[in-house]
Amino acid sequence: MEKINFDNKYKKFSDYWSPKVIAEINDYQFKLVKIQGHFIWHSHEHSDEAFIVIEGSMEIHLENRVVTLEKGEMFVVEKGIEHRPFAKDECKIMIVEPKDIVNTGNKKSLLTSGSDVWI
Amino acid sequence: MEKINFDNKYKKFSDYWSPKVIAEINDYQFKLVKIQGHFIWHSHEHSDEAFIVIEGSMEIHLENRVVTLEKGEMFVVEKGIEHRPFAKDECKIMIVEPKDIVNTGNKKSLLTSGSDVWI
Repeated sequence: MEKINFDNKYKKFSDYWSPKVIAEINDYQFKLVKIQGHFIWHSHEHSDEAFIVIEGSMEIHLENRVVTLEKGEMFVVEKGIEHRPFAKDECKIMIVEPKDIVNTGNKKSLLTSGSDVWI
Repeated sequence: MEKINFDNKYKKFSDYWSPKVIAEINDYQFKLVKIQGHFIWHSHEHSDEAFIVIEGSMEIHLENRVVTLEKGEMFVVEKGIEHRPFAKDECKIMIVEPKDIVNTGNKKSLLTSGSDVWI
C-alpha cells in the first residue's frame, strides 16, 4: 500500500493506447494511458467507462457529437455506447473501469492490448 | 451524459468533509470533497477507498505511519484499515468508491454526511 504519483508512473512507459494499471479498489481498476491520434470505434457491452484527462486535451467521438475534454475534466461513456477516442497531440489520461475490460471492447484490433498490465 | 469540469464543480460548494457525487460508473461513484483540519479515525468494513488529490496537499494517517499526498497523487486505503485524513490547509480531493459508502465508515459522528449528494 504505497502512494502513487501520476507523473512518475507516466515516465515508465511510452506506448500509445496501451492502458497500464496503477491501482485497484475491490474489482475496479485505475489505468493510465497515453494517447495520440485516432483509436477505433468500439463499445463495452457490460460496463460504463470513466475518462479523466490528466494532461493535454482529447476528444471522445460519439454517434452524434464530439466531447472535448481538457485537463481537469472527465466523462463517462455508458455501457453499450459506441465511442472513438482521439487526441491531436499526446494526451495523458486515466481510465476507471472494472477489471478485465479490454480496451477495444467489442472489436478485435491491432490496438487491442492486455487488460491487466501493471506498472 | 455531459462532461464534468472539476473546477466548476468545486465552485458549487464550500463545506468541508462533505463528499459530493459528480459521476457514476455502474455501481461506483466519483466524489469531490474539500477538506481542512482533522477528520476522525474510521474504517470501511466492506470496501477499499481511493483518494486522489486534485489541488493542495493532504495526509492520510494510518496506524503506524502517515502518507502525504500532493496534487497528482493517489492512495488506496484497503477495506478494514483504520485511517484518518488530515489537511493543514484547504485541499481538494476526489474519492472513488462504491455507492452507499458513508464517509465516516464505522463511526457515527457530526462529520457523517449523506452518501449520495450530487452536484
